[in-house]
Amino acid sequence: MSELDAERIARSYLLRVAEPPAPALVGFVGEHGPVVAAERVSRADCPPKVRDETAARRAHDYAERDLERAAAAETRLVIPEDGEWPAWPLLSLAVAQGRGVSGVAPPLALWVRGPARLDEAVDQAIAIVGARAATGYGEHNAAELGYHLASRGIPVFSGAAYGIDGAAHRGALSADGTTVALLGCGIDAGYPAQHTTLLRTIGKTGAVVSEYPPGTSPARHRFLVRNRLIAALTEGTVVVEAGRRSGARNTAGTARALGKVVMAMPGPVSSGMSAGCHALIREGEATLVTSVDEILETAGRLGEPGADPAKPRRRTDRLGPEALRVHDALSERSPRPEERIAAESGVPIERVRALLPELEFDGFAERSDTGWRRRPTKT
Amino acid sequence: MSELDAERIARSYLLRVAEPPAPALVGFVGEHGPVVAAERVSRADCPPKVRDETAARRAHDYAERDLERAAAAETRLVIPEDGEWPAWPLLSLAVAQGRGVSGVAPPLALWVRGPARLDEAVDQAIAIVGARAATGYGEHNAAELGYHLASRGIPVFSGAAYGIDGAAHRGALSADGTTVALLGCGIDAGYPAQHTTLLRTIGKTGAVVSEYPPGTSPARHRFLVRNRLIAALTEGTVVVEAGRRSGARNTAGTARALGKVVMAMPGPVSSGMSAGCHALIREGEATLVTSVDEILETAGRLGEPGADPAKPRRRTDRLGPEALRVHDALSERSPRPEERIAAESGVPIERVRALLPELEFDGFAERSDTGWRRRPTKT
Repeated sequence: MSELDAERIARSYLLRVAEPPAPALVGFVGEHGPVVAAERVSRADCPPKVRDETAARRAHDYAERDLERAAAAETRLVIPEDGEWPAWPLLSLAVAQGRGVSGVAPPLALWVRGPARLDEAVDQAIAIVGARAATGYGEHNAAELGYHLASRGIPVFSGAAYGIDGAAHRGALSADGTTVALLGCGIDAGYPAQHTTLLRTIGKTGAVVSEYPPGTSPARHRFLVRNRLIAALTEGTVVVEAGRRSGARNTAGTARALGKVVMAMPGPVSSGMSAGCHALIREGEATLVTSVDEILETAGRLGEPGADPAKPRRRTDRLGPEALRVHDALSERSPRPEERIAAESGVPIERVRALLPELEFDGFAERSDTGWRRRPTKT
Repeated sequence: MSELDAERIARSYLLRVAEPPAPALVGFVGEHGPVVAAERVSRADCPPKVRDETAARRAHDYAERDLERAAAAETRLVIPEDGEWPAWPLLSLAVAQGRGVSGVAPPLALWVRGPARLDEAVDQAIAIVGARAATGYGEHNAAELGYHLASRGIPVFSGAAYGIDGAAHRGALSADGTTVALLGCGIDAGYPAQHTTLLRTIGKTGAVVSEYPPGTSPARHRFLVRNRLIAALTEGTVVVEAGRRSGARNTAGTARALGKVVMAMPGPVSSGMSAGCHALIREGEATLVTSVDEILETAGRLGEPGADPAKPRRRTDRLGPEALRVHDALSERSPRPEERIAAESGVPIERVRALLPELEFDGFAERSDTGWRRRPTKT
C-alpha cells in the first residue's frame, strides 16, 4: 500500500470517528500525521480533548468499506496530501481558528463526486446562499446571478437547499458553468429529496462535496457546520434572500469571521424574505449588490471586464486576502517588526516582506526604523 | 419705523438683488448688518465680489411692495433678527461654507406662509425626498413614512415636487402632522401646477418656505440651490426612490456635506427608480432604512419609543450634531487645545468645554496635558 493510500484510509477513518468540526482531532492530526493519529485514536492513546471528540465512534472503522463504496458511486476522498486539495482557501479556517473563532476547524478530508477539481473550482468562486422559503423575486435573482457568474467563468458554490440555493445552482448549470454543492449530510443521503436530479446533474458537470461520511443523515447542526466550508472555499458570499433569523445570515457571519467578502441583495421593504438582507446591509455586515458587476467589484475583481467604476465600500476592500491579513496585523500606534507581523497574520515571513512594500506603495503602511505601522485610512 | 422693520425691508431688498446662494453678499451683510449693507449695495459701494453678485439687479428695489403683497397673501418674511429664525440648523451651512464646501451660503431671509413657526418646525425634522417619476412602490413608501413620522410628532420636510415629495407631504397631512414645503421658486409661483391645492393645504397647517422673492419662476438651478435648505433644516434626509442621476442624490450629497444623516430606502433590484438609492447605500453615502423606527434610530433618536436595538452604522452616528462637529475637529495624532477645537468646529467654546468630557466618557476623545485628541474608533 502506498503512503498516499495509507493516508487516505486513515483520513476516511478519522472523518467517521469525530463529528466535525473537531478542533482537537485536527490539531492532533496536524501534529502526528493522519496515519499515526488514526492508529493512536483507534486505541484511545491520545490527549483527553481528542479522546472526548472520538470516544463515541472510535470503534467505527469502516474506512476501507467507505472508500470502496464511494469509488463504486464515482465518489473520491480528497485529502490534504492530494494536489487537488484546496489548501489556500481552507487556510482561512485555520487563521480564524488561530484568532479564537470557534467552530471553524478545517475539514480532515472531503468526499467529492464530479469532474471539477476542487483546487481549480475554488479559484475566484462566489457563494450564493439564501432562504429555502424564497420568493419568486429571490429565486429569479439567484438564478440570474448564477447564470451570469457562470457565464463569465466564475464557479458558483451553494448548499443545494430548496429556494435560493437550488435556483443559483440551476442558473449556473444553464450557462454550462461550474457549480459546486456543499452538503450537510453524506453525499449518498439523497437529500433534499426533490433535488436528487439536480445533485446528479451537478455531480456530472461540477462537484458535490461533503465532509460527512457516506450514510450520514442531514441535521440542522450539520448545515451550520457545513456553512463554514461554503464561506471558506469562496472569495465572497452573496445572500440573495433571508428572513430576519435565517441560516443564510449564519453563513454570512462565518464568512465575515473568515475575512471573506459578504454581500447581500436588497428587495422590496415589504418583503420579509429581504428583511435579513436589509439588516445585514444596514448593520454594516454586508455590502449591497444588485448585479454580477457589483459582485465582482466587491469581491476585489476590479480589473474584470464589465466591472463598473463605483468605489468599493472600504479602501481596504481592494486588498487581496493575504495583504489584508498583513494589513490587519499592523498597528497604527506603534511600528512592528516583520517577524511579529508574520506571526500575527499567519502569512509566511517571505510573503510579508514582499507584501509590505506593496502596502506602502498603496498608502496602507509606512516603514520606520523599528518596523512597519498602519497608515490611518481616510473615508 | 422700528429697527426690525428696517432690517426686514433691507433683507427683502437683498433677497431680490442677488441670486442665492450669494456668499459674498452674505458675508457683507454679516459684517455690516442688513440696513447698511442694503444701502451700500444700492449705490454699488461694496467690494468687487459683492458688486458682481448684485450688479444685475441692484436697481430692483421692490422691498416694501414685496412685503405688502406678501402680507396680503398671508406670507411673512422671516429674518435672522426674528425669534422664529431657525438659527441653529442653518448654522450647518455656515460651518460647511467655512470648510470650503461651495454653494452652501446661508439664506439672507426666508419667505414663509403657514401657521408653523420655523424654529419649532425644524426640531427633529426629517426630509423625505425622491424622484418625480416615482413608481407606485416609491409613492406608497413615501406616503407611509410621511404618515408614520408625522404620527410620532416628527415634522416632514420635502420639496413639493411630483412623485415622492408630494406623497411624503400628503402622508404627513393625513396624520394631521406638520409638513413643510421648500420651494425653488417664489411662494406665489403656483408651481408645480397640479400641486397648487396641496401647497394651499400645507400653507394652512404647516409651512411653505422659499428664499426666492415673489414672482420668481421655477428653474432647475434653483431646485438644486433650494436642496441645501431641505438638508440644513432637517436632522436627516431619506431618499425613497432615485434614478442613477437623480436630483435627490444631489440633496443627499449636500446633506452629507452639512454633516447630516443621509438614509435611503432599498427596493427591487430590477427597478431603475431604486438604482440611485442602492448606489448611495452601496457607496457608503447613505444608511439603508426600511421603516420609521430605523429612520429615528439612524437620525440618532435611539431613546425613542419603538426604536429597535440594531446597531448604528458607525459608532459616531449616535452623537448629536454639535458633538459630532467637536469630534470631527479633533485629531487622532496630536492633542489640540479647546480654543482651536472651538474654532475648527464652529461650536462655542463653552459648549466645547461641556461636550469634550461627554465625548471622553463615551470613548470618543481623550484628554492630555496639551489638549484633547480623538480616540481611534473601532469598527
